[in-house]
Amino acid sequence: MREVTAYTWVPDFAQGFVKDLRVRWALEEAGLAYAERLIDHEQKLQPEHLKRQPFAQVPVYRDDQVELFESGAIVMQIAEGSEALMPKDSAGRARTMSWAFAALNSVEPFVANVRITQLFHADAPWADGYMENAARMAAGRLARVADWLKGRDYLEGRFTAGDLLMATVLREMEGHALLAAHPVLEAYVKRCTGRPAFGRALEAQLKVFAAHPPQLVSA
Amino acid sequence: MREVTAYTWVPDFAQGFVKDLRVRWALEEAGLAYAERLIDHEQKLQPEHLKRQPFAQVPVYRDDQVELFESGAIVMQIAEGSEALMPKDSAGRARTMSWAFAALNSVEPFVANVRITQLFHADAPWADGYMENAARMAAGRLARVADWLKGRDYLEGRFTAGDLLMATVLREMEGHALLAAHPVLEAYVKRCTGRPAFGRALEAQLKVFAAHPPQLVSA
Repeated sequence: MREVTAYTWVPDFAQGFVKDLRVRWALEEAGLAYAERLIDHEQKLQPEHLKRQPFAQVPVYRDDQVELFESGAIVMQIAEGSEALMPKDSAGRARTMSWAFAALNSVEPFVANVRITQLFHADAPWADGYMENAARMAAGRLARVADWLKGRDYLEGRFTAGDLLMATVLREMEGHALLAAHPVLEAYVKRCTGRPAFGRALEAQLKVFAAHPPQLVSA
Repeated sequence: MREVTAYTWVPDFAQGFVKDLRVRWALEEAGLAYAERLIDHEQKLQPEHLKRQPFAQVPVYRDDQVELFESGAIVMQIAEGSEALMPKDSAGRARTMSWAFAALNSVEPFVANVRITQLFHADAPWADGYMENAARMAAGRLARVADWLKGRDYLEGRFTAGDLLMATVLREMEGHALLAAHPVLEAYVKRCTGRPAFGRALEAQLKVFAAHPPQLVSA
């Protein structure tokens, strides 16, 4: 038994980007079947859900042995059990873990600052001034990843959970000048998201949204 | 052989907060000795260091079997080998991993946006408007952690690597009204940083800075 908690529906801009996608992708790469547990935007705020996900978000994952939250942690948990996502040797495991945290702590916060400002605060009086700074910071991090990837198909040569997480971060910037400045990153995102497992994961997330009615989303 | 790469010196505001502190703390909790490998702010930009730390930062960690970067990954690597930092059973390991990622992905980015704006952009024309938004976001995340901690000494009852990482994030806000709004969080930070292992780690970091001359810090 493997179960992934996801939303019944989200607004257009979030469809294909809700973070249960990472978990679905990891399970697809590992060849593991899973059930969906769907909640809506009222249920996410209820004590029953907060006991499972203290930040009122998705995903939550459980199987016969563990229950955990945070997409990064869940992906690494799945990677523990699948050589498709992480080498078995301790050196390779350590590198996978490095890139998992790099994606979510050294890159994603800077990408998110740009994306969130554009999505939710474009008309705020502070947006232009702040964005100049946020874009410069994000550009610096993207340049470091691009430098690393030169001559490599994946961060450590072969696909790992680190690439899975990094690709989900970078694809938030697809079509943005900051990503387009680095053809090596654009090619990397295409390489990762071109994997059949990604396609199946994306399709599975979007299928749920298509089957449920829109709903007011509270914070 | 265990080796932690750290800076020879950083400016006052960063002393006691450079992220090798997390690694030193984890090693102290685990009762493991380590050597320091010190670099300065010119060396961090050299190809030799970028091969070890692609973002031109510290820490880097290595032992006889692994070499890795990202403080979160290193702390989890050390936790793999020490029950002082993580329970041995798979359910307890999964919870520790959840909180490690929660600290660094669901809390730290919001705390950092507040801190970095105050430290580096206080006089920018966009600072006040942006800060109103950043403070509201950070307050939301802190409230969720505070709710979780009510009735608990540590995130999962006993101290784990998840607490270590969460405490290093929250202590960035010590003395700030956003943290002071939650006595449960202030008490938690004091409980974690009151551990003898934290004291030894902090002392070890500060001792290096005191022994080296100030230096111009480039980005």
